[in-house]
Amino acid sequence: MSTKSRGNAVIGQSGGPTAVINQSLVGVILEERKHGHIDRLLGARHGVRGIITDDFIDCTNCSQELLERIANTPAAALRSTRDKPDAAYCEKIFNSFKKNNVRFFFYIGGNDSADTARIVSDLAAKEGYDLQVFHIPKTIDNDLKVHDHTPGYPSAAKFVAAAIMGDNFDNRSLPGIKVDVIMGRNAGYLTAASVLARQWDEDGPHLIYVPEAPISEDKFLGDVDRVYSNRKRCLIAVSEGITLPDGKTWFEKQAETQERDAHGNMQLSGSGALGDYLGDLIKRKLTPVGGKPPRVRADTFGYIQRSFPGCVSEVDAVEARRVGEMAVRYSAEPGSGGSVAMRRRPGPYYDIEYFLTPLSTVAKETRHMSPEYIANSNDITRQFVDYVRPLVGRLPVVGSFEELKTI
Amino acid sequence: MSTKSRGNAVIGQSGGPTAVINQSLVGVILEERKHGHIDRLLGARHGVRGIITDDFIDCTNCSQELLERIANTPAAALRSTRDKPDAAYCEKIFNSFKKNNVRFFFYIGGNDSADTARIVSDLAAKEGYDLQVFHIPKTIDNDLKVHDHTPGYPSAAKFVAAAIMGDNFDNRSLPGIKVDVIMGRNAGYLTAASVLARQWDEDGPHLIYVPEAPISEDKFLGDVDRVYSNRKRCLIAVSEGITLPDGKTWFEKQAETQERDAHGNMQLSGSGALGDYLGDLIKRKLTPVGGKPPRVRADTFGYIQRSFPGCVSEVDAVEARRVGEMAVRYSAEPGSGGSVAMRRRPGPYYDIEYFLTPLSTVAKETRHMSPEYIANSNDITRQFVDYVRPLVGRLPVVGSFEELKTI
Repeated sequence: MSTKSRGNAVIGQSGGPTAVINQSLVGVILEERKHGHIDRLLGARHGVRGIITDDFIDCTNCSQELLERIANTPAAALRSTRDKPDAAYCEKIFNSFKKNNVRFFFYIGGNDSADTARIVSDLAAKEGYDLQVFHIPKTIDNDLKVHDHTPGYPSAAKFVAAAIMGDNFDNRSLPGIKVDVIMGRNAGYLTAASVLARQWDEDGPHLIYVPEAPISEDKFLGDVDRVYSNRKRCLIAVSEGITLPDGKTWFEKQAETQERDAHGNMQLSGSGALGDYLGDLIKRKLTPVGGKPPRVRADTFGYIQRSFPGCVSEVDAVEARRVGEMAVRYSAEPGSGGSVAMRRRPGPYYDIEYFLTPLSTVAKETRHMSPEYIANSNDITRQFVDYVRPLVGRLPVVGSFEELKTI
Repeated sequence: MSTKSRGNAVIGQSGGPTAVINQSLVGVILEERKHGHIDRLLGARHGVRGIITDDFIDCTNCSQELLERIANTPAAALRSTRDKPDAAYCEKIFNSFKKNNVRFFFYIGGNDSADTARIVSDLAAKEGYDLQVFHIPKTIDNDLKVHDHTPGYPSAAKFVAAAIMGDNFDNRSLPGIKVDVIMGRNAGYLTAASVLARQWDEDGPHLIYVPEAPISEDKFLGDVDRVYSNRKRCLIAVSEGITLPDGKTWFEKQAETQERDAHGNMQLSGSGALGDYLGDLIKRKLTPVGGKPPRVRADTFGYIQRSFPGCVSEVDAVEARRVGEMAVRYSAEPGSGGSVAMRRRPGPYYDIEYFLTPLSTVAKETRHMSPEYIANSNDITRQFVDYVRPLVGRLPVVGSFEELKTI
């Protein structure tokens, strides 16, 4: 381990927040103090934007007490950005690094951030400037290649599982058809985690739809009708990114059926439009001729899935801290760089090992759910439960009179 | 305390679920075992509907282990109902009671349930049938007269405060205008609890709108514009029941602007329509001429506010259990009946005493927020914070780099 300082470091946070993204930040800050190869540790405000505007917080000396509180605070403590740097932008980042003698860059984010890290790393290599670049994974979508899973996902999955569990009891109390729209534009991992809400045979979610399994309107309505006829209620977990067999998303389809005004640039998250469309579709198509429409409600879980405090997976908190720490440890080795990844060790118990994977293996591309995780285009398999349960950990312990006999 | 059994008892749950409604149920079941005046305790499935269809669960002998798990389970373990009995329906309830030698009726619910309890109690009195009727309060809306507050509200308030706290950090990470629509058709208590999310000066919610303070479109847009211009972001907590100065609700107004199909009977909860309308309004009206529209998102918190497990206020759990226990204790006194209410004892610390109030004082009517709790039609006062904080209890401990100086 080198004890002589080799220059300054920059750390930044990017993309959609998670409940544990600050664990990784604090992991970097506290681990750095155990080493000598970094001089000053600068936190870039709003990610790459802070780098090109010289907007830094010096993290070198903040108190551990404050850092532990920050670690428990959802969303990016350094602020985040949606900027997706092009070549010119990356040039500016690199120039800022040269000016500030930055030799280490830690970037917490998803696949776009990994790509930014890769471009900047390549620029430095081309100029022969000694820069070690580390991507620290973060995304509730769980859609990074190579990584077994990504910090942020387990806590969001825990929130979704708990919310669906509560909503199942709500729907059982006052039966009807309930649609819950869950985040995940391209990958269904978060929606699939709703399967953990099931405790007893009759529990929902009774139907689960993910983007990886396209579904037609007829099949969807047939599924709902069948469940509702059998159970007199139906709880549906559906990804905001569900697709039609022709490859179009349901969201695009509902948007087409709506009048848009000149400024109305409809977006997927932060809108109840898809949920309302699905609820309305069910009501329109499943109302018996001359009969009463079924009681249909739709909720869109929205941003609280990624930022709700107090529903963090313990495994996630530990691992998010750890990937930050590991990035600093790896950086002690001159010339190293890459994305800090996790893989499961073989064996009967959940056990993780950390490793570095080249930035190019993670950059840009999206991972999708394996077909073995999806059943019949409307459910999730036991294999997926085995994959996700150790990540989410303990869920609320509940009880039901179904455990008794009715008099 | 009477030790001789005076007949059977029925307990039921009614209306919208809460996170602690089963605490009250379990409070009744376990307390009953300490007394001798009740023979069998029958749980009516789906409230009054179970009474008239003879659909009962015998709660007399279920294990304490199961009951404690049920107490921690959100939503009505006995199932709930939206039935609002008329005179003929109440007659059927009364007939079922006579048939089953029911001499005690415990009904957990809001003001409609108190009214049902009152009618049935009056029927029995008229016929000279000895029936003791107890209303056990429950509503996340906190809108019962006489009651200082109602079980269920503190836990929903804790969920809202935590969700808004998380969303404040999310909005700070990626600044924009964010609208969060919160439950409460007629009373603003739940929306007002969002005020607890504020930790530092710059924290949201920056604007809070409750139904008790009507607001015009111009004033609303002016508020948002001012906050957004000053802070470059704006987090808005708005009740689903906000009203216009002419007395109409904003929801009614948005519904008028939408095309409705023949079956589309739009409802307030379980729909993102109001949030989307507000978001769209802001985008349309606050986009500078020729400029880029601000980043606007809207979330509607929906049913998880009342049924999310694992975010229960400790005070609420204890009090919800206690009102159930107290109902049974009061019932030991022959001839007693009423709604089990709480009031605060005077003094520097939060301290509650329980009392019985006549059913007629609670039945039907809705309590609204006092004007002293509302500031400038867009904010909540210190007086309300003093009222609500002891109910909600501890919120997540968080930290921010704002506590440091920027380099």
